[in-house]
Amino acid sequence: MGALDEEHYNVELRNGVKFGGCVELGFEEEPETLAIVDAVKVLLEGLGEDFNREGLRKTPLRVAKAIREGTRGYKQQAKNIVGGALFPEAGLATQAGHAGGVGGLVIVRDLDLFSYCESCLLPFQIKCHVGYVPSGQRVVGLSKLSRVSEVFAKRLQEPQRLANEICAALQHDIKPTGVAVILQCSHIHFPNFGSALFNLNHENWVKMLVKSGSGVFDDEKADIWTDFLSLLRFRGINVENTRSRGPDDKSWCPSQTFCKMGPPESAMLGAVSSILSSLGEDPLRKELLETPTRFLKWLMIFKHSNLDLKLNGFARSKRDYSLTSNEEHLCYEVNLSFWSQCEHHLLPFHGVVHVGFYSPNGVINPIGKSLLQSIVHFYGFKLQVQERLTRQIAETVTSILGEDVMVVVEANHTCMISRGIEKFGSNTATIAVLGRFSTDPTSRSKFLQMIPDLSHVEG
Amino acid sequence: MGALDEEHYNVELRNGVKFGGCVELGFEEEPETLAIVDAVKVLLEGLGEDFNREGLRKTPLRVAKAIREGTRGYKQQAKNIVGGALFPEAGLATQAGHAGGVGGLVIVRDLDLFSYCESCLLPFQIKCHVGYVPSGQRVVGLSKLSRVSEVFAKRLQEPQRLANEICAALQHDIKPTGVAVILQCSHIHFPNFGSALFNLNHENWVKMLVKSGSGVFDDEKADIWTDFLSLLRFRGINVENTRSRGPDDKSWCPSQTFCKMGPPESAMLGAVSSILSSLGEDPLRKELLETPTRFLKWLMIFKHSNLDLKLNGFARSKRDYSLTSNEEHLCYEVNLSFWSQCEHHLLPFHGVVHVGFYSPNGVINPIGKSLLQSIVHFYGFKLQVQERLTRQIAETVTSILGEDVMVVVEANHTCMISRGIEKFGSNTATIAVLGRFSTDPTSRSKFLQMIPDLSHVEG
Repeated sequence: MGALDEEHYNVELRNGVKFGGCVELGFEEEPETLAIVDAVKVLLEGLGEDFNREGLRKTPLRVAKAIREGTRGYKQQAKNIVGGALFPEAGLATQAGHAGGVGGLVIVRDLDLFSYCESCLLPFQIKCHVGYVPSGQRVVGLSKLSRVSEVFAKRLQEPQRLANEICAALQHDIKPTGVAVILQCSHIHFPNFGSALFNLNHENWVKMLVKSGSGVFDDEKADIWTDFLSLLRFRGINVENTRSRGPDDKSWCPSQTFCKMGPPESAMLGAVSSILSSLGEDPLRKELLETPTRFLKWLMIFKHSNLDLKLNGFARSKRDYSLTSNEEHLCYEVNLSFWSQCEHHLLPFHGVVHVGFYSPNGVINPIGKSLLQSIVHFYGFKLQVQERLTRQIAETVTSILGEDVMVVVEANHTCMISRGIEKFGSNTATIAVLGRFSTDPTSRSKFLQMIPDLSHVEG
Repeated sequence: MGALDEEHYNVELRNGVKFGGCVELGFEEEPETLAIVDAVKVLLEGLGEDFNREGLRKTPLRVAKAIREGTRGYKQQAKNIVGGALFPEAGLATQAGHAGGVGGLVIVRDLDLFSYCESCLLPFQIKCHVGYVPSGQRVVGLSKLSRVSEVFAKRLQEPQRLANEICAALQHDIKPTGVAVILQCSHIHFPNFGSALFNLNHENWVKMLVKSGSGVFDDEKADIWTDFLSLLRFRGINVENTRSRGPDDKSWCPSQTFCKMGPPESAMLGAVSSILSSLGEDPLRKELLETPTRFLKWLMIFKHSNLDLKLNGFARSKRDYSLTSNEEHLCYEVNLSFWSQCEHHLLPFHGVVHVGFYSPNGVINPIGKSLLQSIVHFYGFKLQVQERLTRQIAETVTSILGEDVMVVVEANHTCMISRGIEKFGSNTATIAVLGRFSTDPTSRSKFLQMIPDLSHVEG
């Protein structure tokens, strides 16, 4: 969910929100947009979906706009951005040191960015820290460090190249004594089907830290790097704790080690290639050759029917666990992880599910965590919206565990960060309440108190 | 700094970044823009500044664009936003509970917003938490909760009215069973000149929490509010710790209790009124009547010369503390707070200054914290850029304490959040190094290690 649909743009245009009071030049009719719309329809069909059903009707156009907006950096040039924002600023009067427009490090920390992984086409998040050492008595408007970073982030990328491109552009445009860039990148994990179907990784993110430096930052062992890293530490950014890329790391993208789910259809492969071309990329560029295959590895996880059988096997055991006693007590399983794919944007949303229910006296979880986790995965691994996911899990659990069930789903929606609204820290919760949970606030409250505060371990 | 200047828009337009490939309709020539440009020139003159000097030359146009962009909500209507994004979604099959499109709370947490205080025209930051209970089997695209909130935030506001307007608009447009809005608002403090010139508040922010509810959230004691608040707790949002508005709180804005700095010039008052009119506001609306006076209370703090005398008094004592011994050791004062006003945007930037120097053996701080704080305030309270502030503090400190001085300035720039780039968490650090600090990495490193990590106490 988190629909940023075409209506928004139209409203902005009608109301003259964009500066200059823009007029529409028919973006929806541009051949690149139409090509992506067609490609998305092929992908939806390949997933076994009907792209005319209510929730998917506008999805192809929404996806086309999102991906073009999210890769708008292809149409931008960094030098146009810095141009007007170089300001003369004196350095220290004595020549005994550095500050102001001559030497004296300037750092902007904690810029939130996102980019698209060139290996698998999924968005990844970035905490970007940029610094430079002024020279020639010229300083640059601080926001330009952010804007230049955005130009390169809004393309298909991999972390090291992104850092290098930001660094090179700033070095070229500002002509300072040096530029340093540190990116802390987070890529969604692919579920680990390799070891056991439902034994997924606990970590939701693959993390990677990359550095790039030019001028006085050319040498990674230069003392100025120590200063730069010290200034990150004040913000709680501990660079040592983040894995740096080793010489053997071919790619950080989990698509590269993810096991295949059967050979992808050639029509779907062609559709992804067509999307790459529409963005202005060359699908034959070395790094992109396998991208359609890898994107489909991800997408086909969400094919509608692929977990049916497993669940049916579990569900048959319902009667063994029917509740009879009135000496029941509140039971719960929290932090059941899930992956899902937003049907409005074809972008991941993922997070945790908490299930509360009443159970016969003494039996902590009569069906076991693994069945609950299976139910969660069954409804997660398809094109979904969070509200429906919540309801479906609740309905299934109640068919097994009786009428008193409460389900809380907490999720991060990629479409909330990689679309126009770019709300990086936002997080969505949905609730389903059945039986006594719907009528008894004390039961709800007791269950809600069992859910741990995970805010500090996120990101 | 953080210049989002006119160049950016031109580049975006040239490159067709905005969807539709917009064409410029002469925003810069619109009468509202020109009126604000003229008003800003009057304000700069009133501050004793020359608006033709290099750093200020483009400031009037930059301010005009920023304030019009930051109040674009006046030109938007919420109902156009929700319109296309209502999706049919079934509720629970049994009638024993709520979820999906029928009942079952949906909450989006931690939306970062900013708004302009109608009392003093300074921007304030908002963590927005929005929830609703679906009815009629209709759910709304999650991003719409954010977009509707933005429409009302991008106007002159005060927290409670903002919450009420978001709540009413969502209730009207989605027609759900109920809507709940919680805003955690942070407004920059005004320096407390009342008690003692340099004894400023340690807290950088006035905080206020406001709630608004409709439908099932109408009653503040309803159980559904308990559920809502529990779901905020999981995100580390502790509502109890934030001050709620009491019945006697006329306004949270610190301008209302800030002592006057002498009667404002009528030309400046007229200029601020003209800005209000240009935004489409009525300067005679009750809440805005005193806004020009209050904005000028803030602005006149930054009049160029107002702290000269105090500093000169201190500076004369230089020779008493000249360093002679070679048994000196590293001394430092950290977290000296400062306020400043970005000369490119006429928006606050504020934070802390850390000063390191070498001192005769045994004397921890030969000049005392209060003189250092005075120096920091002297260079803070004017139209500034952070790079220059850093250099000027270093130069002044070195004239008193000898050649080995290092200054680190850490600041949050309002122009980085309330302009186009909207990088809410970003923070800027600048460094000046003199004498041995410029040549000896160990000295730098020793001083940098003394600076505490304050990232966890911010916000």
